[in-house]
Amino acid sequence: MVRTILVIGAGKSTSYLLDYFLKKSDEEKIHLKIGDLHPENIPDKFSNHKNCKVFPLDIFNETDRKKAISEASIVVSMLPARLHINVARDCIAFDKHFITASYISDELKELDPQVKKKGLVFMNEIGLDPGIDHMSAMEVIDRIRDAGGKMLLFESFTGGLVAPESDTNLWNYKFTWNPRNVVLAGQGGTAKFIQEGTYKYIPYQKLFRRTEFVEVENYGTFEVYANRDSLKYRQAYGLENALTLYRGTMRRVGFSKAWQMFVILGMTDDSYTIENSEGMSYREFVNLFLPYSPTDSVELKLRHYLKIDQDDIRWGKLLELNLFDATKKIPLKNATPAQILQYILEDSWTLEEDEKDMIVMYHKFGYELNGEKKQIDANMVVIGENRIHTAMSKTVGLPVAMATLQILNGKISTPGVQIPINKEVYKPILEELKNYGIQFKEYEVPYLGYNPDSVAS
Amino acid sequence: MVRTILVIGAGKSTSYLLDYFLKKSDEEKIHLKIGDLHPENIPDKFSNHKNCKVFPLDIFNETDRKKAISEASIVVSMLPARLHINVARDCIAFDKHFITASYISDELKELDPQVKKKGLVFMNEIGLDPGIDHMSAMEVIDRIRDAGGKMLLFESFTGGLVAPESDTNLWNYKFTWNPRNVVLAGQGGTAKFIQEGTYKYIPYQKLFRRTEFVEVENYGTFEVYANRDSLKYRQAYGLENALTLYRGTMRRVGFSKAWQMFVILGMTDDSYTIENSEGMSYREFVNLFLPYSPTDSVELKLRHYLKIDQDDIRWGKLLELNLFDATKKIPLKNATPAQILQYILEDSWTLEEDEKDMIVMYHKFGYELNGEKKQIDANMVVIGENRIHTAMSKTVGLPVAMATLQILNGKISTPGVQIPINKEVYKPILEELKNYGIQFKEYEVPYLGYNPDSVAS
Repeated sequence: MVRTILVIGAGKSTSYLLDYFLKKSDEEKIHLKIGDLHPENIPDKFSNHKNCKVFPLDIFNETDRKKAISEASIVVSMLPARLHINVARDCIAFDKHFITASYISDELKELDPQVKKKGLVFMNEIGLDPGIDHMSAMEVIDRIRDAGGKMLLFESFTGGLVAPESDTNLWNYKFTWNPRNVVLAGQGGTAKFIQEGTYKYIPYQKLFRRTEFVEVENYGTFEVYANRDSLKYRQAYGLENALTLYRGTMRRVGFSKAWQMFVILGMTDDSYTIENSEGMSYREFVNLFLPYSPTDSVELKLRHYLKIDQDDIRWGKLLELNLFDATKKIPLKNATPAQILQYILEDSWTLEEDEKDMIVMYHKFGYELNGEKKQIDANMVVIGENRIHTAMSKTVGLPVAMATLQILNGKISTPGVQIPINKEVYKPILEELKNYGIQFKEYEVPYLGYNPDSVAS
Repeated sequence: MVRTILVIGAGKSTSYLLDYFLKKSDEEKIHLKIGDLHPENIPDKFSNHKNCKVFPLDIFNETDRKKAISEASIVVSMLPARLHINVARDCIAFDKHFITASYISDELKELDPQVKKKGLVFMNEIGLDPGIDHMSAMEVIDRIRDAGGKMLLFESFTGGLVAPESDTNLWNYKFTWNPRNVVLAGQGGTAKFIQEGTYKYIPYQKLFRRTEFVEVENYGTFEVYANRDSLKYRQAYGLENALTLYRGTMRRVGFSKAWQMFVILGMTDDSYTIENSEGMSYREFVNLFLPYSPTDSVELKLRHYLKIDQDDIRWGKLLELNLFDATKKIPLKNATPAQILQYILEDSWTLEEDEKDMIVMYHKFGYELNGEKKQIDANMVVIGENRIHTAMSKTVGLPVAMATLQILNGKISTPGVQIPINKEVYKPILEELKNYGIQFKEYEVPYLGYNPDSVAS
């Protein structure tokens, strides 16, 4: 019997996801239906495939949406997170399992009793981060617990970066995902975490100056700045008694110290618009944030304001972005500083067609076993193929695809609105991901309990 | 014929206001009625005065409120700004003039057509700042314009400070008004102003590092940091074509550089609460914002974090506040960092009974007259008498009182919801304020067009 997988929304993270389904389609007797508002953007190889149908779908058209969902065996939503809810409600109405890579929203969470009552699996947060981070962390945490260990420390970091062979700028960074998220990173609230039983708070103005270093074999040193809420999965992971909980974002060393310049200048602000932004030069934009002078140059004012010597690498980083160019113009109307900064950065930080991205994930697990304190560090590196087949779309898309098939085949069956923290879910998926080169390396290291390299310079 | 002035709300800024009315009560045939939620807190000298009646008034009791307003000849509201609106609506209903020292809210502004139709005067922003700043600025601006001059530059600064004779701490600062406003100063949006025709933006994280210095004869040097919106009165003052518009807050030199420590640490944050704040020591509070260490002291961590040498005056300022004291406890439950910081500062920065506050106001007016560029600087200093009779309550209360009497006597009669920027209003009030020692000194200075002392160190 042929089963129909309905994928709603075929954006840039879906290339690996769709490929996976089609490769399995004969063996698994799958018919793939891809519904998208703009089906014309979907490569011909999909519409030409015998086991696949691409069709236009406007999810705000209730009739079309309900029809598509009612005809499917299982539904994958790759829509933006805010658009999932109506699809999810229809899935309950028509008794369909439902899979997304997005964070669980409050309104989705509220569907849990209905979903359980109908025996459906609503799997969320099963991409990279959130997704692979949950699964790989719980795999080690459960193993430690099963052996009788007690968790003391959990730290987890992810970075979407540029691969070493495509790392061609002073920032060691290019956009490989949503640039807006990068520009706004750290805003919207003080970062909060626990270290050795003590709460710690880092305000935005210090976030990029409180970095911690980590080494990844063969890939060198990375730095980490804190995510906003390190305590988010405390309960879900069963870490209520751990002394240290810290989640962060990875960058190459030196990125954060340089990024801090934009923070301090005020260029990452998204809360007001600059009326005359259209046609403004990069140089004029920079000057908005500097004291007025009838004589001093924008360059000297900035160096003095931020106390940067001209042989400071941060100065080179600014020059590389053409920030002082009076001929480069901003085409954005009434834009916020953050929008303008994003435009300027995209001008320099966009991947070329043949350039590769890189995903790095790093976990630390500190625990006590038989009276002894121990620590496991685990890390994963995935390199992309090119600008289309990125490590990001691979690590987001494959776990979604694998979970979909497992659910369709009844291998994952615990009902409810959930994230992938149960053995039933993470075991087969982590195992299958290895076939695609997505795999963690583990190291036993001395237990630290805190990180002595955490600097505040 | 006796006229009744109804004053609603007799808080700490009303001592001079009420005294003024009673002193004039025989001569002007005034009966003063003071309605307050807690009349028991109002000194006996008022209730014992033959021309005064103190009575309990809950403004949320509609019957009582309407009765009191309907019986008055004119109404002064000294309530918190958000509570004016119902009083204002009743004033329209019963044909009463209405006076406040508060900023005009949007909903109050909307009453303007009705107020004009009834021929009523609704005078607002007639305290110190806003109030005396409007009047003293417009007096000079109108004079320049009447002489044929063209305004090029307007800067205006106010500070509520401690008088030199009571200035006994390293910060050269004590609370003389609402401490909460001081702790939250500069939050809620990027500071925006115009300098020589160019927009300038200062984010919170740099606000206290972009100070400008001003000298006041006999009182030494002050510093100024930018207010959030320097362009607020651009239209009202008719300064659409001025090249430089800057409004700011005055402090003694060095205050802002030290205050920046609290900003950078995150201690002024009012957006989240610290769950275990009750019973926490000052020292533990400071440590919340510093990296964890099993060995290093809170002192050394803070000095390293903020890069402060131990002979830096800022270090002395922190010690003076007992910030590292492990025995001093915070009694506040689930408090925000800003609330806790306020508590710690009030512990040190509260005026003694016989100590005096000081109000300083400083304006700069740059203009062109007959092809020549000129500048007038004007400043005012008012010293308080003691902790009750402060310069703040004098400079807030007297203009309100004087405006009330002028309106009652028909001398100020232009109807509408307004601020004191018209000659009819500011002329008599500025003149009368001189009798109370509230007076500006003017200096002709070379036109600068910008301030070369504006530093960004």
